[in-house]
Parts: sequence; C-alpha cells; structure tokens
Amino acid sequence: MGFDTVIRGARVVTSGVVSTCDIGITAGRIAALGTGLDAPEIIDATGLIAMPGGIDSHVHVSQPSGPGVEMADDFASATRAAACGGNTCVMPFCLPEDGQTLREAVAAYLAKAEGQCLTDVSFHLIVKSVDPVTLGQDLPALIAQGMTSFKVFMTYQGMRLTDAEILQVMAVAREQGALTLVHAENEDAIEFLRDKAERDGRIQPVHHARTRPIPVEREATHRATTLAEVADVPVMIVHVSNGAALEEIERAQARGVRVFAETCPQYITLTADDLDRAGFEGAKWVCSPPPRDTGEQAAIWAGLERGAFDVFSSDHCPFRFADPAGKDAPGARASFRNIPNGIPGVETRLPILFSEGVSKGRISLETFAALTATNHARIYGLESKGSIAVGKDADIVLWDPTLTRPITQDALHHGSDYTPWEGFEVTGWPVRTILRGQTVMLDGDPVGTATGQHIARAKPGVTP
Amino acid sequence: MGFDTVIRGARVVTSGVVSTCDIGITAGRIAALGTGLDAPEIIDATGLIAMPGGIDSHVHVSQPSGPGVEMADDFASATRAAACGGNTCVMPFCLPEDGQTLREAVAAYLAKAEGQCLTDVSFHLIVKSVDPVTLGQDLPALIAQGMTSFKVFMTYQGMRLTDAEILQVMAVAREQGALTLVHAENEDAIEFLRDKAERDGRIQPVHHARTRPIPVEREATHRATTLAEVADVPVMIVHVSNGAALEEIERAQARGVRVFAETCPQYITLTADDLDRAGFEGAKWVCSPPPRDTGEQAAIWAGLERGAFDVFSSDHCPFRFADPAGKDAPGARASFRNIPNGIPGVETRLPILFSEGVSKGRISLETFAALTATNHARIYGLESKGSIAVGKDADIVLWDPTLTRPITQDALHHGSDYTPWEGFEVTGWPVRTILRGQTVMLDGDPVGTATGQHIARAKPGVTP
Amino acid sequence: MGFDTVIRGARVVTSGVVSTCDIGITAGRIAALGTGLDAPEIIDATGLIAMPGGIDSHVHVSQPSGPGVEMADDFASATRAAACGGNTCVMPFCLPEDGQTLREAVAAYLAKAEGQCLTDVSFHLIVKSVDPVTLGQDLPALIAQGMTSFKVFMTYQGMRLTDAEILQVMAVAREQGALTLVHAENEDAIEFLRDKAERDGRIQPVHHARTRPIPVEREATHRATTLAEVADVPVMIVHVSNGAALEEIERAQARGVRVFAETCPQYITLTADDLDRAGFEGAKWVCSPPPRDTGEQAAIWAGLERGAFDVFSSDHCPFRFADPAGKDAPGARASFRNIPNGIPGVETRLPILFSEGVSKGRISLETFAALTATNHARIYGLESKGSIAVGKDADIVLWDPTLTRPITQDALHHGSDYTPWEGFEVTGWPVRTILRGQTVMLDGDPVGTATGQHIARAKPGVTP
Amino acid sequence: MGFDTVIRGARVVTSGVVSTCDIGITAGRIAALGTGLDAPEIIDATGLIAMPGGIDSHVHVSQPSGPGVEMADDFASATRAAACGGNTCVMPFCLPEDGQTLREAVAAYLAKAEGQCLTDVSFHLIVKSVDPVTLGQDLPALIAQGMTSFKVFMTYQGMRLTDAEILQVMAVAREQGALTLVHAENEDAIEFLRDKAERDGRIQPVHHARTRPIPVEREATHRATTLAEVADVPVMIVHVSNGAALEEIERAQARGVRVFAETCPQYITLTADDLDRAGFEGAKWVCSPPPRDTGEQAAIWAGLERGAFDVFSSDHCPFRFADPAGKDAPGARASFRNIPNGIPGVETRLPILFSEGVSKGRISLETFAALTATNHARIYGLESKGSIAVGKDADIVLWDPTLTRPITQDALHHGSDYTPWEGFEVTGWPVRTILRGQTVMLDGDPVGTATGQHIARAKPGVTP
Repeated sequence: MGFDTVIRGARVVTSGVVSTCDIGITAGRIAALGTGLDAPEIIDATGLIAMPGGIDSHVHVSQPSGPGVEMADDFASATRAAACGGNTCVMPFCLPEDGQTLREAVAAYLAKAEGQCLTDVSFHLIVKSVDPVTLGQDLPALIAQGMTSFKVFMTYQGMRLTDAEILQVMAVAREQGALTLVHAENEDAIEFLRDKAERDGRIQPVHHARTRPIPVEREATHRATTLAEVADVPVMIVHVSNGAALEEIERAQARGVRVFAETCPQYITLTADDLDRAGFEGAKWVCSPPPRDTGEQAAIWAGLERGAFDVFSSDHCPFRFADPAGKDAPGARASFRNIPNGIPGVETRLPILFSEGVSKGRISLETFAALTATNHARIYGLESKGSIAVGKDADIVLWDPTLTRPITQDALHHGSDYTPWEGFEVTGWPVRTILRGQTVMLDGDPVGTATGQHIARAKPGVTP
Repeated sequence: MGFDTVIRGARVVTSGVVSTCDIGITAGRIAALGTGLDAPEIIDATGLIAMPGGIDSHVHVSQPSGPGVEMADDFASATRAAACGGNTCVMPFCLPEDGQTLREAVAAYLAKAEGQCLTDVSFHLIVKSVDPVTLGQDLPALIAQGMTSFKVFMTYQGMRLTDAEILQVMAVAREQGALTLVHAENEDAIEFLRDKAERDGRIQPVHHARTRPIPVEREATHRATTLAEVADVPVMIVHVSNGAALEEIERAQARGVRVFAETCPQYITLTADDLDRAGFEGAKWVCSPPPRDTGEQAAIWAGLERGAFDVFSSDHCPFRFADPAGKDAPGARASFRNIPNGIPGVETRLPILFSEGVSKGRISLETFAALTATNHARIYGLESKGSIAVGKDADIVLWDPTLTRPITQDALHHGSDYTPWEGFEVTGWPVRTILRGQTVMLDGDPVGTATGQHIARAKPGVTP
Repeated sequence: MGFDTVIRGARVVTSGVVSTCDIGITAGRIAALGTGLDAPEIIDATGLIAMPGGIDSHVHVSQPSGPGVEMADDFASATRAAACGGNTCVMPFCLPEDGQTLREAVAAYLAKAEGQCLTDVSFHLIVKSVDPVTLGQDLPALIAQGMTSFKVFMTYQGMRLTDAEILQVMAVAREQGALTLVHAENEDAIEFLRDKAERDGRIQPVHHARTRPIPVEREATHRATTLAEVADVPVMIVHVSNGAALEEIERAQARGVRVFAETCPQYITLTADDLDRAGFEGAKWVCSPPPRDTGEQAAIWAGLERGAFDVFSSDHCPFRFADPAGKDAPGARASFRNIPNGIPGVETRLPILFSEGVSKGRISLETFAALTATNHARIYGLESKGSIAVGKDADIVLWDPTLTRPITQDALHHGSDYTPWEGFEVTGWPVRTILRGQTVMLDGDPVGTATGQHIARAKPGVTP
Repeated sequence: MGFDTVIRGARVVTSGVVSTCDIGITAGRIAALGTGLDAPEIIDATGLIAMPGGIDSHVHVSQPSGPGVEMADDFASATRAAACGGNTCVMPFCLPEDGQTLREAVAAYLAKAEGQCLTDVSFHLIVKSVDPVTLGQDLPALIAQGMTSFKVFMTYQGMRLTDAEILQVMAVAREQGALTLVHAENEDAIEFLRDKAERDGRIQPVHHARTRPIPVEREATHRATTLAEVADVPVMIVHVSNGAALEEIERAQARGVRVFAETCPQYITLTADDLDRAGFEGAKWVCSPPPRDTGEQAAIWAGLERGAFDVFSSDHCPFRFADPAGKDAPGARASFRNIPNGIPGVETRLPILFSEGVSKGRISLETFAALTATNHARIYGLESKGSIAVGKDADIVLWDPTLTRPITQDALHHGSDYTPWEGFEVTGWPVRTILRGQTVMLDGDPVGTATGQHIARAKPGVTP
C-alpha cells in the first residue's frame, strides 16, 4: 500500500462515527484508513477534524435572472468561494434561457463550467416548460447522462408550473427514477398580497417578506406533498423556512409519502427584521422564502435536532448590492417586486452550521457530516462522494474547531459585494479543502488549479 | 501494519456508508480499512456483508420473575443465542430481588455473567425503589462504574413507580448525566380492565392484549415524555408498539423534548390474533405491550422508514411454554393475569429486520446498521462498539444476504422451548459473528470459548 | 291575540331547547308560543315534534349540465320533493349559461321559479368567470338584492377557478360582506388520475371514486382555507366527505380562520362500493366528492357529534338513470368521465338524518334543528327563517318520530327515476310541512298551491 | 291566559335565536311568548336584552379550606353576588370535611344554604375518597336525589385521587348515568417543581404560576380523557386554561370520547404577570390552574369562537386578601405554597364575557346564552332552566348592552375584599335579575327575599 498522501491523526468523521486515524490517499481516492500510514506527502492534522468535503446541493450560478440583471458569480468565483467555505462539490441549477431547450441549456452550462471550477459540480435541471420535447426527450436523455434530479417552481412568473404540469414532471421522475425538487410557495396568493401592498404604497424591501407569509409556503408545501402522493413519487422540499411548512412535511411522511426536506442558514440565523433595515439596505436580505422570526428559527432548529431535515444547503443565489445589475435593478426602489431574489451563501454555509450547531452543542459531528455531505451524496446519487471511506473520492476538509473569527465580506471570495452575515461570529472554520487528493484551499485562501469536474450521478438514493 | 486477521472483500457497512474493502484486525480491534491487506488469518468475505456486530440493548436474562417462575435463559444460553443471531453485545437489565440493594444486585449479576458469556454484556439498571440509598448512593456509584442507564416501569405491581418517583429518578439522571428508559403503560387502567375481564370470565391469553389496549400505552407515553419535559432530561421510550404512542413521542420532540424511541420485531410481525390461538397456545405470545394489528404494524414500519425510531431491540424475555416455571405457571390457565410476560427474541431480531427491512427494500444497509448497532452504541455510551471504524472493537458480523430459510425452534440456541416466529421465512442470515477479533459463531453454530466481558459505558450520547 | 292557526301540543324544538306548547300563527308568522291557544284552525300535534321547516342550502335545480344533459328536476318538482321531505326553503345555485352574465342568469332563474315553487327558494350564485362585469357590477348588485353568497369551484373544467381568481372573488366577498362557498377538489390531480385510469382501461363508474381520492379533497380543502386566510374572509367548505378534509378545516379554525363546514347524507350512509355495483348500475351513485368508506363515515359522524359541522345539506343534483339525458349520457359507458355528476337527495336528507341521528340516539332534537334549519338561516342570512320563535315565518314541520318505513322511489316526488337509498329503513318521518302558515305536505303528499317565493337575504351571520 | 307578569319588548335570546317579543310569566314559569301580552305587572324592557338567567356551574361556597382558612362567601353573600351578576342559579361543590361522609356533608350544606339564597342552587359532589360507603351507597343515593355530577381532583394533597380511584368513580358514573368533572393538573409534577422552587428560594406568589406550567395541565388532561376512554364515560374537563390542554380535549373528541370543556374569565383576561405584582399583591391572583399569557388567552378565545367550549363558568373560590384567614394565611409570605388557591368571580363572570365577547363582536348573543346558561342546564340536567321557553322557570336577566362602567370592588356584593378585575372596563351590564318570576336584583342592587331553592337535577344531557 503505497499512498500518494496521508492525512495524519485527525478525528475522522463520517455520518455515523468519529475515529482518530490516518487517511491514506492514492490516485485521488481514499485507499486506507488506519494508523501509522506513510506517504511522500504527509498532512499533519493532529487536533483537526477531517470531514467529508461539503456538498452544497442548492446553488445558483450564472443563471439567467431577467433583463439587465446578472448573478454575481460565475463558475470560477462560485467554486472558489465554495472551496474556501469547505466544499468539494456544488450542485447548481441549469435553467434554460427563453428559447433554449433543456439540453441546449445543459450544453451551455457545461461549457461555462469547463476548466473554471475549483470544486466538482453536478447539475440539477430546472423544468420550466412541460412540452413534449422536454418531457419525452430531454429529461430522459439528461437523466441517462447522470442529471438525475430537477426542480419545479410553484412561484415566480414565467417559471412556475401548474399542478397539472408538476404532475407530468413527477410522472417522468417516477418512470425514470429521478428526484423532483419543489420550491413551494403559492404564487397566486403572493401576487394577491403583492398587488395589495403596492396599491397601499407598501413598497419597501420588508414587504417582500410580508407578502410571502408563512401560510403561502405552508399551503404550497401541503400541495406539493399531495401531488407527490398522487403521483406516487419521492419529493424534496427545498429551503423550508418555518415550523408550519415542516409540519406539513412530517404529516405527509406519516401518511407514507417519501418526502425529503432541506433548510438553509438563513432560516436559523436571519429574520424578516433584517429586511426592514433603513433605506434600501434591507434589499440585501431579499430572498424567497424570506427569513421569518426567532420563533420559526427555533422551530427549524428543533427540526434539525430531531432529524426532520435531510440536507442543509445554502440556496446561494448571489447578486451585488450596489449594482444596477444586482439588487439595485431598475424599479427596485419603486417596489420590492423588482429586487432580484437571493443572497450569497455558498462560502458561509458550513462555518455557520458548524458554529451554531456543533460548537454550541446542538448537533454532533456525525450529524454535521450527514447534513452537509453524506445525505446530499446519498439522496442525489453522488456515489463517489460524501463519506470518508475506502474507495470514495478523497474529498476531505480539515476543520479547526477552535478557530474563532467573524464573517466579513473582506475575507470572502464570492462575487457579491456583501454578505448577509457581516460580523457574525463563528467558532470553527475549515482550514484545508482537499478535492480528490489535491488541496484547493489552505488557511482560507484558494490554492491550486481549477481541476473541478462535472460529476454524472447515479439514481437518487431514496430508500431510508 | 501487521494484522492478526484480515476480512477480505466484504461490503463493509457503517451507519452512513457502504464500501467494499478489507478490514485489518489487530489485538481485537479494527486496525485498518483498505485494500490488499494481509495477515496470518484471512477470512474471505467476498459476496458477504460486514456489519458492525449487533447490539441488543433490551434483553432480560436470569431476572427474578416471581415465585416459582424462572427465565428460560441464563447468561450462557442468552449470549450463545445472541451470538448465533449476529450479536456481539447484549444489554440485560439488572433487577434487585426483594431485599437486595441495587449494588448487591449488580454484584450478583456480574457474578452470574462471569465467564459465561459468548458476547459482551453491559447492564442497564432497574429502579424499582426510590429510597435514599438507591438514589443517593447506589445510582451515582453504579453510574460512575459505567452503568449509565436505568429503566423505570409505569406498569407491573411491585415495580411500577409513581410519577413523583419517576421524577426523582429523572432528577438523578439529570444530575449524573445518565439516561432514563421508560416502560410506558398505565398500570391503573390495565388493572381496571383486567379486573373487569376477570369478573366477566374473559380469562384466556388473548385478554392479556385486550386489557392493555393502545390508549393505556399512548397515555403513559404522553405522561412519560411530559415528566421528562418537567425534569428537563432526555428519555428513551422502549418497545413502542403502535402509531398513537409514536405520535406522542414525535409531538414531544416537536416541543423540544429529547425523546428516543425503541421498537421490536414483535411490533412489525405479530398481532394480537396470535394470542387468540386455540387453547392455551396464545400464551406463547403474551408480552407487554402486546402486539397489535396489521394497521399498527404499518404505522411502526412507517416510523422506521422516516427515522422516527432510534433503536430496534428484541425485548428478549424468555420463558418456556410447556413448563410450570414458565408460561404454564400456577394459575395461568385460570387467568391470563398469571402468565409470565415476555417472549424470546435475541436470536431472531436481526434476521427478521434484515429480511423484512433490507431484503424487502424498505430500509438500506446503513439504516439497518444504525438501528441494530450504531445507535445503541452512541446512545448508551458503548464507545468502543457499534461501527466498523479504525480503533473500534473488532465486533463484526458477516451476513449472507442470499441465504433463505425459515426460523425454526430446532435451529435456535436460546433456552426457551419455542419461538414465536416458528416457520417465519427469512432471507438474509448472519454466517459468522466475530467478537473482538475472535469468531464466536460460524454458519449458525456457536464456536470458541466464552470470552465475553462486561463493558463499562461512557455517558449517554444524547446530542443529535 | 287572535290567531289564524294554532298547532297544539307538539314538542316544539329550536336549536337550543325543546318545550311542549302551542304555536299560534297569524298572517303566516309565528305570533305566540304558549298554552291553551285557540284559533279557527287547530292542528292537533300531540305526540308529534314541531321542527323549524328544513332549509336545504345546497340544491341544484334546472342547472345547465352540458350538451344534451338535463337535470331531472325543475323548480316545480324540486320544491314538491323538498316539501314532501320536510323542507320549507331550498337554496339552489344560479349558474350562468355560456355567454350569459350572472345577472341575466339570475333573471332567467327567477323566471323559471316564478309560480312554480311549493317551498320558498333563495339563490346562491356561482362565479365561474372573474371578468370585471361579474366582479365589479353583477356581484355587488346581486348581493344588494339579497343574494349574499356564492360558490366557487376548484374542480370541473369550465367552472374551476384558479387560486388567483378565487382570491379576487374572496376580495369581493370581503368588501361586500358576502360569503364564499368552495367546492374543494384538486382538478389537476383528478385529471392526472383520470387520464391514467382511462389509459389503463379502468372506465367503469367505480373509477369515478378512485380517481377522486381523499388526498385531492384534503389538498383543496387546505388550500381553500389558506386562500381565505390570505384574503381574510370567512369561507364555507361544502360537502365534506372524509375525516382528513375535516381535519384541515379544524386546523384552519385553530389558526383563527373562520371556516364553516357542510356535510351531506351520502357521506354518512353510502360508500364507494356502491359505485362498484354490477354493470352500469354504479352510475347511480356517481357524485363529487364520492362517498368513501365506513371508516370515513365514522369520521363524519364523529364530526357531527362534536359540532364540527355547521350545516347538513343534500347537494341534491338529480339526473335520471335510464335516460340519455341523464346518467346514461353519450359516452358514459365508455368512460366514467362522461357520467353526469350528482345524485337526488332533497326529499330524503331530513328523514335520513333524523333516523340515523335522532332515532339512533347520536344527536339531540336541538342539534337536528340546528344542522337542518337554524344554522342555514343564520349563516346565510335568512332572517325570517330557521327557528320556531315569535315573529319568524311559520315554517314548521311536524315529525312523527315513531313512523318506520323504508325509502322507496315509488313514494318519492322528485324528478329522478331512482333514489340512491332504495330500501333504506327510516324511523321518523315528517307528516306535515307548513310554509308560512299554509300546509304544503300532509302525510307524505303535496297539498295546496305553489306559493313559494324567492327570499332576499341579509348579510351572512358569521359571528359564532 | 292571565299572566302574573309580562316582560315587554325585549330582544329575547335563547341559545338558538333572538326575537323581539313579550314574555308572559305565570306562577314563576314562562307561560307564553308573544306580542301584546298583558298582566298586572308589566316590566318594560324595550331596548334591553332578555337572557336566560345565568347559571354558574362552578362555584365554591363555604367550602372547608384547611385549618384557620375560611372562604369569603357563605350562601347568603355568594348568591347575593351571583344575582347581582346576572345569575339565577349557581352550582357549588359539596366537599366533605375530614371524617364526614358525603351524605353528611350534603346534609350540612343543605342546612347552610336553607333560607339564605337569593338564587337557586344545585350541588355537585366532590369525591375525595373511594371507600365502599362513598361509592356503593352515598353516590347512588345522592345521584337518585338529583346530585348527578361529581368532581375528582388530580391535584391537591388530600383531595387528589389516583388513576385507579378515578376509574372507580367513573365506573359509578357510568352505572348511574352521572357526569364526572375533572380538575386536571399533575400533582406529582407540581410538587416536584414546587419543592425545587422552594429549595431555590423562589417563594413569591408568581412561582405559584411557574410551578404549575402548561405541561402539567396538558398531561393531566390527556390522562383524564384517556381514563374516560377506558371507562367508556363522558367527562367534563373544568377550567381549561390554555391551548395545549384544549388540543388534548379535541384530540380525544376526534377519537370518539365524549369530552365537555369549561373555561373561565381568568383565562381570557388575566395573565401570570398579574401574580408577579410587587410584594405580596400577586397573591390576589393565585388560583389553579393559573392564568397564562396573552398567547394562551388568544387560544382560549379561538376555542370559544369555534365552539370548542361547552360552558363558561367562574370557578368562584373567594378568599379575603388582607386577612390571615384568607390569602394572608400563616406561611403564605414564606412560600406561595401556603396561599389559599382561588379568586372571587361569580359576580363578574357574565359582564366580562358580555363585554369582551358580545360587545366586541367576537360572539353572538345566542352563543353567550349557550355558554352561560343553556349548556349548563342541558349538560347538568337542570331541566327547568337555561332557556326562555314556554314551561321553563321564569329565570330571566335583562341586560343593558349600552351601559359602560368599570368593575370596582365598591360596587360588588361578594364577601371578598377585592376583585382581580378592579378597574376593568365593561360594556353591557345586567340591570334586572328575575328568579322564577321574582325580581332579585334591580339596577345592580339585590332586592327581595332569599327564596332560592336547591334544585334536584335530571341525568346529565350528554347527547350532542
């Protein structure tokens, strides 16, 4: 057993167990776990924690965002930020431009990512049209190529699908063994409230949150799980923001529906009050669903603690604040309706959960690994990833659990010009990210070349 | 790295991941996971599954059971059966005889177990009296010795504690960092129904089930979780038999109470109709809580599938059927009240769950490992056990997932003269059990000497 | 106090109390309650029960039902049947024909009813289009004329509204103080299941029930109550068929939404098995939502018993069975999809509830009065009706609680050629129906002339 | 029809309907409802509301309260206050002194009440011992005498019964057709918290509330409804203080258990903060269960609005504040444990509900009548009372809905030296109370002689 690299003496975490040992790496894969391993390259990890590389299964990169608006990250900057935040794989959504087929969109995305990525990437698809080509040809072909999951939207004009359309998509998912992700908010109800708010002159950023209240998410969540029940397929509800929506998910599970649930850092740390900051400042926190209040944060935490959530992602969707191509888009100050939705988060997801969860004693290291890597890999079919186990990709992140410093925009590497967590104190930071055996981040800075690849995935792992 | 033994080529399962590799064992511990490992002793496990040795955290052995009644298993036979059923560690309950202190009882138990055991053992305590010596001296001393969990009963005359007493025990658990297990059935309600049944001449075994209906378990479960809420401690609800009781557990979790839940093979495979067999035959299935019906089996399965249960144990509590010291105790035919409660199961727990769960596609191998070993080790503080990971005890069971044969009393090794699952078809059997590197079962038969030890445990692992 | 008529000696029931006394009637109104009252016309009601005349707030009469299909009842036959079944007022729905405005439809309906009715009538509106004329002009005008309630459909192609449209209608209801009724079934989900059933050759009547399963009603009920929550208006969920939908209603109430609930005789007496009768026979029971099973019947009964339902109506929607303009419409035998939806019931609603409810001891006389008359009057603003109280219309029905006979088509007066309850045994029948002081039914037969009027209503009574 | 008295022109309310008419009274009973009624005595009630006389089915009068402690009201002062507060009947609890049998206690109570009462009274029993005499002789005899309801306590040392004892009492209730009332709080849990509070020096009045938190009431409520489920009897849960306890009641109802629910003014108007007033002042608000917070008030209101409560009572249990025989009992300042539990409220119950409920538009007049009179009469078998209907006792209260003034101790007639609602503004006051045709309160002052009688009751009315 000659290794290329050995990581020595870390507390090695997988979703089920922590054990202190060496990790032997050969040809980018984990070749052995043991003690006294040796290799030309030795990484001394004494006192550190070796985690499976973070997988962020919910990020938006270079996604078409409306006329004149541009996302703050391309693949180079997004994966650079991801690597610096302790990730070795991100899963962006592939959204067709108007007039593009899904396969054309995928081709364009692959081209954009090619040679740019510091982490691996693997695409989800977005189905915004249920024409015969999309359902009958593109989806089966792309699933066969390893893009085995797709998202549908119940909100956003131009993207939302009707229930009938969602059922058609789910029928394809069932036939092909793919997984459907749902963004669950009732667009009609939002429009109703939004129109009323505008008529009443309530146009500031905070009204973004007030016109997307919990009932519109709860309703859509109940509906999405019912559609899955009717179509007899598993479903993933993304970015669950509150206890009532989570209750709908658990009620569906108790009825026997296989429902997976995701939540994000914004729902355990931010509130709607953040959108209510003076002037236009609140626009920095405009995302959907909006952050709620501390009571709902507690409900999400309780859910994390009792295992109600399968994955913890960022929903990274970055725009620049001081930028007419970003938050300050034309009309944005005249109505919250025109503020691009989304916040940057791929670089801060893991430190936030580590600090709030592990360092504060709410969750164990094993649960952290499950929520941030293992479950993503299992559910989305990333077979070579998500665990520190013999034969898996050597995607490993070393954490220093004692390192304390605040999140600051200055220290981040994403393309946005702000972070919603400016000044947020964090204990526990990743200090080295290793992608298939190669170090891509060291002590907070990106290193090495962009060797990230697009990963074709197996069928979703939906058996509990 | 010189190993004593290498297990070659199995699909190695931990609670979070499956990977095909070799396992190197040195001095009874797992020294390495890798490929191409070599050792004087090679166990070829190609085509087999290597699981962490089963931990059965709910068994009764040589326990005082009333005048003239004797359990069918002593430590020799119980651990022999356990090993043959794929277990490497069992957790019996230590119940003081009348007049004995808890510490005296533990000493007597340790003496009985000494040199008899084919698997490791680790004792839970039973608190049936809340006198100052028990609470103030014995519990702290025994917890310090590594018996970090104890059960209280809400049922059984002579064992049941009042709510006030349970709260006192929980206060000790809180102070000492131990875990309280609760048998949740409302004794008063059972007595009420039992007296009425007897007055009405309903005295056959099936009335054991009918006088312990779901509401008495649901009520006690709600109460137990509330007492834990009031005392601000985690709690384990053992042998949950039905959906309504499980719902109470999940409601308590949603309120933020840390509640763990256990279920057993009888609740996914047997029903109250089994107690209604002709003549006295039904006595074979008399246990508490009783098996329910197929609807409740489905509710328990749904719970297993959505992760609502932490551990799957046997509640092995064996009596002989054709024996006046067993099920046929004096008075047993005159009233179900006098039938000793309990069924044998330590040897059949794992094959039943493997067959019904893994082989039928309801749960994954990882979940099987978590439910039968990893979670028991984590929750009960068995730090050296429960996972196939470097540094852990080499407690490993090799499974042949293709082997199909029925459960039959003839093939079992427990002390009872029957099995409740006679003729139950099973696909997937353990073919070799390895305790700290030594094979103790091969191809269904016990081998080797009784090297099992009593294991002192760490504090319970109650962080999610 | 000179009375025109005195009803002597009945047990007089109102929703709150039963008292034995005389009822003095003058000029069509109740002038006094007392003892020893005298008048030229004395009706001896000793041994009988005097109930407020039944109000059936959910009936369909002469409603456009698609090309070539005709309802089995016009106003003459429907109100004749109603009177014979113990009703003094029915509330039909006014549905515009294609191309008709709502006001034109109302005018046409009033013309059809004029001079034909043996009971009073009062129209609900159906909103199937949300154009500016309907919302901005017709609804306000018709509400001002006393048609203060309207129904929206979440199912039926051509009638269903989107969530956005329902919210617009609810906004009008809020502004004008009217009440919105919702038929809650998810059309898209039904279509999905229906298409699949047809593709699979499952085309018999029973598949009507199987393609409208409980989840599609539960989902739409959750959604309807959420839309009411968002629009901040009360809402009435009509014809609730099962416990899951009822649970959604009660959850909404617990959130503070004012939700009223209606159920019907079919949901406490019929099952989906009725649709599974040999050949095309099952078509007789095709209605939406379909009857469920005995478990759901029990859930509806439990709801009636705990006061979860406000009104008990018939959803009378009669078609002839052996008729190409009825159930045997073109294509009906080729697919259940083409069978006209609905069953006759205006004549049997009250006897069924009296027999199953009062005679079997499940509900009291007062609750019967509330569910069949008083609550309808209060909620829908029929101020002069619904109670036997001084000043109210003398709408009184005398019941003989001892009379036992089965329901048979021979003895009915509706326009349909069958009854879904053929042979259903009933104890307790109305023996005299009095409309504003005039007897319109005696001993089961219609008497007198058609003096029924259209009643303009006050604003809905939505304060509990 | 010669009447003794006619009440002219009031809006006459029963639980189901409001109608403006005259009420003719003869020989203490309602003889007629009509118009133009005449009599020697005419009471002009134009502009007023005629309500059925209030029935307060939960009051404590002259009840043994521990050594040295005395209730502030005897029958004279309690019924004087009751009449001034719009009541015509109160239902005190008959609690045996130590050594007294239940029948002796009843005899003593009847003697105390004899000739003293300005309203009618009817006793509930308290079962604090389940000896054979009480269960086998006294209860059947007293039920036969018309005391058809009894309360059991799950709290209070010396009064609380075990589950086994409660089941025995419920078995008697079932056999005899009586109704069991339950005070649902878990005494053991309270003791646990109370002991801890005292050990920690938390001894002020507010800790009364903090050591009786919602979980102890929720738990006991779940248990009480389960015991009723096991014993197969109806049950009344008295003084429900919060939404979680109410949820348990509604869950039990959904399981088919017949559960009635009571709440009181303190749970919609007071909070635990009232107990936290400076110094010993908070003792004025010490009652059990304690008032909660505004969130729970809202939950109770939502329950009242959706019909979840059957009766609204006072739980009048008056002690003087500045009195060593009252709140300032020996030891009371050293620990909240020694403060007598209870607050005065018989005189303020109805104005508070009228003002907060009817005047603020939350509930209708009919619902007010149901909650304060009709349902009490029906459920507890007061057949001659509870409604303004021909043949009923002429127990009528005239309300002036426009009268606004605050509650002040100065204006009250009870024996206590304070009111918990000092300064609470009320719109809508009773201006005349008529007991069986005789005015006993006029314009806020008691009038007439003490003609109140003890009323024997029929079996409870438990059919919905």
